[in-house]
Amino acid sequence: MSRLKLGMVGGGQGAFIGGVHRIAARIDGKWDLVAGALSSNPERAAASAVELGIAPDRSYGSYEEMALAEAARTDGIDAVAIVTPNHVHAGPAIAFLNAGIHVICDKPLAATPEQAEAIRAAVAASDARFFLTHNYTGYPLMRQARAMVARGDLGKLRVIQAEYAQDWLAEETSNKQADWRTDPAQSGAGAIGDIGTHAYNLLSFVSGLRTEALMADLQSFVDGRRVDDNAHIMLRMQGGARGMLWASQVAVGNENSLKLRIYGDKGGLEWAQENPNVMTLTRFGEPKQLITRGGAGLGEGAAGGTRIPPGHPEGYLEGFANLYSDAADVIAGRGEATHLPGIEAGLDGMWFISACQQSSSANGAWVSR
Amino acid sequence: MSRLKLGMVGGGQGAFIGGVHRIAARIDGKWDLVAGALSSNPERAAASAVELGIAPDRSYGSYEEMALAEAARTDGIDAVAIVTPNHVHAGPAIAFLNAGIHVICDKPLAATPEQAEAIRAAVAASDARFFLTHNYTGYPLMRQARAMVARGDLGKLRVIQAEYAQDWLAEETSNKQADWRTDPAQSGAGAIGDIGTHAYNLLSFVSGLRTEALMADLQSFVDGRRVDDNAHIMLRMQGGARGMLWASQVAVGNENSLKLRIYGDKGGLEWAQENPNVMTLTRFGEPKQLITRGGAGLGEGAAGGTRIPPGHPEGYLEGFANLYSDAADVIAGRGEATHLPGIEAGLDGMWFISACQQSSSANGAWVSR
Amino acid sequence: MSRLKLGMVGGGQGAFIGGVHRIAARIDGKWDLVAGALSSNPERAAASAVELGIAPDRSYGSYEEMALAEAARTDGIDAVAIVTPNHVHAGPAIAFLNAGIHVICDKPLAATPEQAEAIRAAVAASDARFFLTHNYTGYPLMRQARAMVARGDLGKLRVIQAEYAQDWLAEETSNKQADWRTDPAQSGAGAIGDIGTHAYNLLSFVSGLRTEALMADLQSFVDGRRVDDNAHIMLRMQGGARGMLWASQVAVGNENSLKLRIYGDKGGLEWAQENPNVMTLTRFGEPKQLITRGGAGLGEGAAGGTRIPPGHPEGYLEGFANLYSDAADVIAGRGEATHLPGIEAGLDGMWFISACQQSSSANGAWVSR
Amino acid sequence: MSRLKLGMVGGGQGAFIGGVHRIAARIDGKWDLVAGALSSNPERAAASAVELGIAPDRSYGSYEEMALAEAARTDGIDAVAIVTPNHVHAGPAIAFLNAGIHVICDKPLAATPEQAEAIRAAVAASDARFFLTHNYTGYPLMRQARAMVARGDLGKLRVIQAEYAQDWLAEETSNKQADWRTDPAQSGAGAIGDIGTHAYNLLSFVSGLRTEALMADLQSFVDGRRVDDNAHIMLRMQGGARGMLWASQVAVGNENSLKLRIYGDKGGLEWAQENPNVMTLTRFGEPKQLITRGGAGLGEGAAGGTRIPPGHPEGYLEGFANLYSDAADVIAGRGEATHLPGIEAGLDGMWFISACQQSSSANGAWVSR
Repeated sequence: MSRLKLGMVGGGQGAFIGGVHRIAARIDGKWDLVAGALSSNPERAAASAVELGIAPDRSYGSYEEMALAEAARTDGIDAVAIVTPNHVHAGPAIAFLNAGIHVICDKPLAATPEQAEAIRAAVAASDARFFLTHNYTGYPLMRQARAMVARGDLGKLRVIQAEYAQDWLAEETSNKQADWRTDPAQSGAGAIGDIGTHAYNLLSFVSGLRTEALMADLQSFVDGRRVDDNAHIMLRMQGGARGMLWASQVAVGNENSLKLRIYGDKGGLEWAQENPNVMTLTRFGEPKQLITRGGAGLGEGAAGGTRIPPGHPEGYLEGFANLYSDAADVIAGRGEATHLPGIEAGLDGMWFISACQQSSSANGAWVSR
Repeated sequence: MSRLKLGMVGGGQGAFIGGVHRIAARIDGKWDLVAGALSSNPERAAASAVELGIAPDRSYGSYEEMALAEAARTDGIDAVAIVTPNHVHAGPAIAFLNAGIHVICDKPLAATPEQAEAIRAAVAASDARFFLTHNYTGYPLMRQARAMVARGDLGKLRVIQAEYAQDWLAEETSNKQADWRTDPAQSGAGAIGDIGTHAYNLLSFVSGLRTEALMADLQSFVDGRRVDDNAHIMLRMQGGARGMLWASQVAVGNENSLKLRIYGDKGGLEWAQENPNVMTLTRFGEPKQLITRGGAGLGEGAAGGTRIPPGHPEGYLEGFANLYSDAADVIAGRGEATHLPGIEAGLDGMWFISACQQSSSANGAWVSR
Repeated sequence: MSRLKLGMVGGGQGAFIGGVHRIAARIDGKWDLVAGALSSNPERAAASAVELGIAPDRSYGSYEEMALAEAARTDGIDAVAIVTPNHVHAGPAIAFLNAGIHVICDKPLAATPEQAEAIRAAVAASDARFFLTHNYTGYPLMRQARAMVARGDLGKLRVIQAEYAQDWLAEETSNKQADWRTDPAQSGAGAIGDIGTHAYNLLSFVSGLRTEALMADLQSFVDGRRVDDNAHIMLRMQGGARGMLWASQVAVGNENSLKLRIYGDKGGLEWAQENPNVMTLTRFGEPKQLITRGGAGLGEGAAGGTRIPPGHPEGYLEGFANLYSDAADVIAGRGEATHLPGIEAGLDGMWFISACQQSSSANGAWVSR
Repeated sequence: MSRLKLGMVGGGQGAFIGGVHRIAARIDGKWDLVAGALSSNPERAAASAVELGIAPDRSYGSYEEMALAEAARTDGIDAVAIVTPNHVHAGPAIAFLNAGIHVICDKPLAATPEQAEAIRAAVAASDARFFLTHNYTGYPLMRQARAMVARGDLGKLRVIQAEYAQDWLAEETSNKQADWRTDPAQSGAGAIGDIGTHAYNLLSFVSGLRTEALMADLQSFVDGRRVDDNAHIMLRMQGGARGMLWASQVAVGNENSLKLRIYGDKGGLEWAQENPNVMTLTRFGEPKQLITRGGAGLGEGAAGGTRIPPGHPEGYLEGFANLYSDAADVIAGRGEATHLPGIEAGLDGMWFISACQQSSSANGAWVSR
């Protein structure tokens, strides 16, 4: 099995999520990183390329140049990972899609609806695939939960409780990660974009339900903060299910507390990302069960994304790696993108962000699609 | 220390909460149950009195009769516990208050605002005390949490997450407990009244903050159900704090999952009723701490309501007993009602119920006081 | 249902376990405390009696006097609770047994084998019943576990892991509780007697297996301590099962960490006293289940000792109360002592203590019965 | 930073631990797998090499051939990973050490003391390094625990409780993994070798204490099993600390339940591998703290092995990867083997195995070094 060739836009020295993408791409040995436009700063780009073992002639000064050059090479990259701040997703995504190169893009899709729409159009016009790294869908138990819901283990869904709480922005903070995330021009939104979209994507992924309307009460608790840092959201979903979603970056004591709970008329599922190898399932009237990654009674979906026996924990990086592994299989013609979030998930996330902002501005009025 | 004399209205054979009140009253040995109007059914009332060791001449056919007779006795009861369905709180409460007998009343205060107002007026006109058994405030760690918030351990409060989830009404159910709780004429409300008021009272008790406005999305998921069985609620609180509250009786896998999480600009507290002897405290930037009932670093409030060493769990009944113990002390002139919910908490709960219903009827509009 | 009359030896002001017995006796309303020899100090005895509402003429200066006087009264006590230090169990136990009064005695049975033997003889010679308060057997889930093992849910038992860890004696400590427990003349042993016997009793109760041999490595970590404060013990049980037992009073961070895990060829059970309302059950090859007190799938034994719905935690005092409730039923002729530890359990505990001491003195040689 | 070149002995199709080593080697991008003697079956070796992208001329028929050929190449491998059953560790280890190639060997060191001694001699005679993959030492919190113990956070150590429980061999089982592990000729021991050595190594690593004597009670519960499948062990350690160690492959409901608890006169630490991103620390008299991987208050050791922010769980593979990452750094001259188990740990593990077998054969007599 020969490896696919990966390029990267962003992710140079000092960046965070680029390194995560690189580990995720390496874990299953299906990708080699061979090209990059790693920084808008030329010196940092070059130095970063050396560190990562990228040949100097494939370390580019801009993504535009990179897209053209790589498309022209016979050994050009198969896909590019875009790991820049939100407002620099659309530019490279469109450039690579236009060049016929598959795109693996960090979330949320973009910083503005206009940018999102431009990406959508480019996807529609290109033969290349577009993947969005809503990586929490890569956790085996979340795939298992989706399969359980789909086959009716919970019955008709009624209630969804989703939350993603952190505390790293509880005070005024300045560093590379905080700065762009709290600048509306670069991020487009605060907690709702950075982590709220993950919770929203995950509940949509697992439930299989479309959200028809939402209302939101957004807050900026830290003085001078220009984006939301806490968000209370209610959801009305297809088929009558209702949900609550809480996203916060000021909830002291929470590191990355992403939790999902789903209840139907026959059963309930509960899962927390911080200990992702276990999930509880209750069939109404029976004792609660602990479903473990790789343990007894799991289905195909979960088994596919599991590398080691149950009791040996896999974590965030392995879940992320499942997206890279699956994307490689899709590109190489070895599999279908059953579990992979793409442009539709990205556009849905953009609707979520703008609906939250619109509702909160209107004192919490319901916003329908 | 001689014991106080307790009477009871309701709580005959087949009832639930009456038995809980009796255990709570017995635990600390400060009360003797000596009189009762235990059932509107005369045979059941008499049989129940025999079981409970109440002398036949103090087993009454009606609460009206009981109030008059006990007030006339030189050895009459010191207080009465009212453990009837919600719509039968006002009648006995007013009768005993008018008779100068202290009242310990189950929650919520009443089934209608009119009944609540009548109780309020009776309390105002009487020298007798009125206590409402929002029993979760009796948990030592909830009293500890309240003290920690009050002394500023969490800083300025920002976010409150409260929930009370059960699943016993996930299907259509008929039994003595379910029947009156799902009959709007007897209960006045569904999940919001039966358990939502507990969550609301607890967050108010611990935070010390008044809720200024709320919005609610109420559902009745079970076909034919005439009251809400799931409720999504947002809160805007005094001083800018915001909250979410979820109450459900259809969340499969939840037995009595009452949880409270409070976050301020300096710290966060998290507690769950199902394992009530531990609470987490995080001071921003420090490791999370496990605060145990009776363990290291506790204050007066918690210590006062604790009977046995940490690690030996106390539970629901002991928390409930703290209310009876404190009420005895207040009545006997040995203490102040620092921790005891009374008429104000009851009226606030009634506002909560009616605001939820009003908001939900208005498609989730905010309802202010 | 008229209440039984209880007397108490020990348990005056400053004592600990006496208060626990009194609460346990009150919870279910089956006992009235009417007599006592509460302290060997006459003033403390009298003051304690007043506090507890015991009539002055039934507050005795010695247990000998009390046994004679109560036996002579037509309204004499039905049973006596003995809550003195270990070396003062035999005296009162024998006195009351000889007087035909039922005995509820704290554990361990005695401070020396000779005392234990004397109690045994008195029990054999008396028509009165003898109960030993190994209170952890009163937890509903431990009764449920015993029933599950007995009906074969775990198959043939193989391995038992039991532990009881505390830290309150991690340093040199002097107070009423510590002083007698660390004085070999009063206690007869350290951690193995005070808490090790509880763990040993519980594993015997749940497994239904007799221990045939044990070996022990006892330590006294605190300088100058004259009894063991940490004990490592291995067990060989009837039918080939093997066990380990750890008892410690110096394990920093443990409050009352009593844990029991039992494994057979078909299944495994795990339980921890600090959150006693849940137990896990795994049938080999199936997902782990959470069995809750009062929850789905429980049997008779557990149901009998449960007062409130699952999710509302019961704790240590309720478990203790189950022993008092059952003892009342046995004495009143309403039930059998199916679950109640008696003289046999007491003698087995004494064997455990002496075998541990003998083995440890012999550098860990196996000691058989 | 150019990558080091890795070879592998064993780990062909159908193997388990070889795949784990490969992922661990890939995660941090410091190794390329370029050569292998992947199977003793030539066809399987060749097919496995193709799958792994190893060039045909570097897929060898035997480890002897591979060691010679790779040593002769100018681009020969820097290190070899030995992932064969225990009885095939010594052969390749010695061959590569003799050829001057660094060795990364799976544990335990060997199947017999004679094999272990031969490896020891080869290590002593070679300039090449020898690393043993006791991978649990790679968990950041175990490194943190070691640092905390070393700097005295727990005071003088008293008690260690270690356990490693599984259930996959609870019944008679036949598959590639089970077969060699339960064949004494290939494995040398059962649970004590396969997982007991891990627990023993981990407690030694964290405590920094040498075990001076042990006693063991080994069982083979499954009919016909020729190695131990459950082991109860007591330890006497340097400086007076005492320990218990339980290893089991028949404890139904345990997947990979490796737990370590260490208590000193000032504090206690508790950790469980199945949720490895959190550890509790109690300083005597203070509330228990939750120490998280990457969270507040961590030291250098833990920080060094952490890739992503706290709350995003890292797992077994990342811990394993820390060993590969550190080994690369040592080989490349970028770091010291501070945390890396080597020949000494391997020999200590062999002592542990043989002492357990010797003690158990002697009815649990203490075996000193």
